[in-house]
Amino acid sequence: MKNFTVTILGSSAAVPYRNRNLSAQLVNHAGRSFLIDCGEGTQMQLTRLKIKSMRINHIFISHLHGDHFYGLIGLISTMHLLGRKTDLHIYGPPMLENIIKLQLEVSLTDLVYRLYFHPTQDHTSEIIYEDERLTISSLPMVHRIPTTGFLFTEKPFPRHINMDAAETYNVPFAFFNEIKTGRDFRTEDGQLIPNNLLTIEASPPRTYACCSDTLYNEPLVELIKGCNLVYHEATFMSEMAIVAKEKLHSTSAQAAMIAKLAGARKLLLGHFSARYDNLLPLLEEARAVFAESYLAEEGVSYEV
Amino acid sequence: MKNFTVTILGSSAAVPYRNRNLSAQLVNHAGRSFLIDCGEGTQMQLTRLKIKSMRINHIFISHLHGDHFYGLIGLISTMHLLGRKTDLHIYGPPMLENIIKLQLEVSLTDLVYRLYFHPTQDHTSEIIYEDERLTISSLPMVHRIPTTGFLFTEKPFPRHINMDAAETYNVPFAFFNEIKTGRDFRTEDGQLIPNNLLTIEASPPRTYACCSDTLYNEPLVELIKGCNLVYHEATFMSEMAIVAKEKLHSTSAQAAMIAKLAGARKLLLGHFSARYDNLLPLLEEARAVFAESYLAEEGVSYEV
Repeated sequence: MKNFTVTILGSSAAVPYRNRNLSAQLVNHAGRSFLIDCGEGTQMQLTRLKIKSMRINHIFISHLHGDHFYGLIGLISTMHLLGRKTDLHIYGPPMLENIIKLQLEVSLTDLVYRLYFHPTQDHTSEIIYEDERLTISSLPMVHRIPTTGFLFTEKPFPRHINMDAAETYNVPFAFFNEIKTGRDFRTEDGQLIPNNLLTIEASPPRTYACCSDTLYNEPLVELIKGCNLVYHEATFMSEMAIVAKEKLHSTSAQAAMIAKLAGARKLLLGHFSARYDNLLPLLEEARAVFAESYLAEEGVSYEV
Repeated sequence: MKNFTVTILGSSAAVPYRNRNLSAQLVNHAGRSFLIDCGEGTQMQLTRLKIKSMRINHIFISHLHGDHFYGLIGLISTMHLLGRKTDLHIYGPPMLENIIKLQLEVSLTDLVYRLYFHPTQDHTSEIIYEDERLTISSLPMVHRIPTTGFLFTEKPFPRHINMDAAETYNVPFAFFNEIKTGRDFRTEDGQLIPNNLLTIEASPPRTYACCSDTLYNEPLVELIKGCNLVYHEATFMSEMAIVAKEKLHSTSAQAAMIAKLAGARKLLLGHFSARYDNLLPLLEEARAVFAESYLAEEGVSYEV
């Protein structure tokens, strides 16, 4: 099974707080790196954690609140100054393109690599990225300005060869790839061996949902049903539920309720208000609702 | 004599390098704080150095290369989120206002304090800030895009009362302030005591010049003549002089030559290329030209 992890780069909401940085996380899947959000200081966090920023080819920006994207222009510039050659794709609200281009224009920067913008919308979930192994869909969030989450879904893996059966029926190695796709096998004496005798089901595809920033929003549940790992913003504790609602944010217990209703395996809580020095009470409130809740810790990589 | 210092917040050119941050420095004069440049991560540096960013009321941006201003929008936002009340004044190239306003607009941010933009130009030196103690002038730099340095000049101090003479001639305390401004004193028996017998010359006003980024530019010398402290960019070593010229930057020896020709007391070298891990060779080259050269070290405050 291919590597599929999420590394937290920043977990602070709105403003940097002590050693908590602004929103950013890196999703690694089968050797490729996808950056979600890019708060100020993300490029420094990448360096600190010895992550090669040049390996990031796709950046997803949830929304245009500064704590989620003010580090993007700096990262783009640094990639330029370090002589990046590979195309860079950016997915985010349409105005992001104007903001980035204006800043490149005033500095007379003619990027040495190609930058592609892919505008997102927050009305419906849609596939915004696809390759042979993965699809990434937007997830509508409910926030003060247009905001999307991101759902990473692995494509189904091919079935595995049952090596004992392959030996029994004398299947030549050259046929393995076809059989993995579901084909039956005809032996030399004409006997048809059905595929299910020759193969074993692969592990089910895994999914990761990144949900930030958002008001508690039950319609989200359907879209992330059965997710392996859900990251959900948890800006406040329950005693601040009214403020959370006013500011279109969630409490950690609400994040946990979404994960529970969705039947997620595991929940990562993040986007913590700077009012909380100690985050354990947020975790406790979440665990009372959904036991498999964890605090998103910066520098830590979580398996999906 | 009032406190007059420069605290270096960032000394790295173009990209962050290890523990060197992007351009920013804080000038403190008589209890007021002026920020010059604001590269990405400046707000974190301020926090790290326990500097109260809310006490900064005036921010000066030299030019619109990202390493000098990408941290500004984040600092402005954080001041907003922390409920700043005081006006904030920003001095920089005209397009800076558009960039900041666009980013505030897309995030639907209606600042809780007032933000004033004061456009700068790089054709001639002009006074851009003045109060009862200080003037700040722009200094034209020679760079790829419009760039200014900043010259901080103290206003002349009033003369000090010569306490021995005041006693000799029985000068009442109530007359001291007038005498400090240069007035003579008439004793009770009608004798006119000239001011120079009653007062002592105050220490001369001090000046600080911040010169970044710029090509080696001798016309600058006249504008910073006799400066107490000069900060001058020193991106490269002499062996890179051709590259420095192409990129409209200076070598550390060129920075030293400007300081020497200007008859400065002391030179701070900064804006170091990430190609240099060890900065001592840059310092040596500068000291061979101007002995009072020093490396700008982050977190250190230098007396003007």
